[in-house]
Amino acid sequence: MKASKQGGKTMYLIVVYDIAVERIDKVRKYLKQYLNWVQNSSFEGDLKEGEVEKIKIGLKKLIKEEEDSIILYETPDKQWVTKEIVGREKSEVTTII
Amino acid sequence: MKASKQGGKTMYLIVVYDIAVERIDKVRKYLKQYLNWVQNSSFEGDLKEGEVEKIKIGLKKLIKEEEDSIILYETPDKQWVTKEIVGREKSEVTTII
Repeated sequence: MKASKQGGKTMYLIVVYDIAVERIDKVRKYLKQYLNWVQNSSFEGDLKEGEVEKIKIGLKKLIKEEEDSIILYETPDKQWVTKEIVGREKSEVTTII
Repeated sequence: MKASKQGGKTMYLIVVYDIAVERIDKVRKYLKQYLNWVQNSSFEGDLKEGEVEKIKIGLKKLIKEEEDSIILYETPDKQWVTKEIVGREKSEVTTII
């Protein structure tokens, strides 16, 4: 899949993962290219629809599908999703990894 | 807040948490009463709007707000959110805790 033309609608993506520790850094580094790290095990952000497909393919290459689990929640417009935080709001940690 | 009458609209709730290990069991047991455990650090399910408020209050009592973090994504209708799983789909683990 060529990334040169990422057309299509914009989607809002929330990614929640449960990955074995030996693969987690690679997955985080990969997701960080496209999304914002919002919590220990989750990322979110706006993407083109084509990028969502690309990310899914990229993630499959980084994980062991029989062991790791990644859930992608996509919404066509984030106006449909209200986000609330209980407790500490983690700042976007872009310097740790 | 009385739980006797949980009126209002139905919401779809996704809960993602990052909780210190010494408090995580209590948080899971609490959330398990209302939602389905879908991954190590996330729950989801349908709730009445009043229940969402109740859960927020309940969670605040169980966590240390300055250390732990819980994100609640609410949508009025889950038709607006598409869920996809890459890798292993964890069955709903109701027997572990």
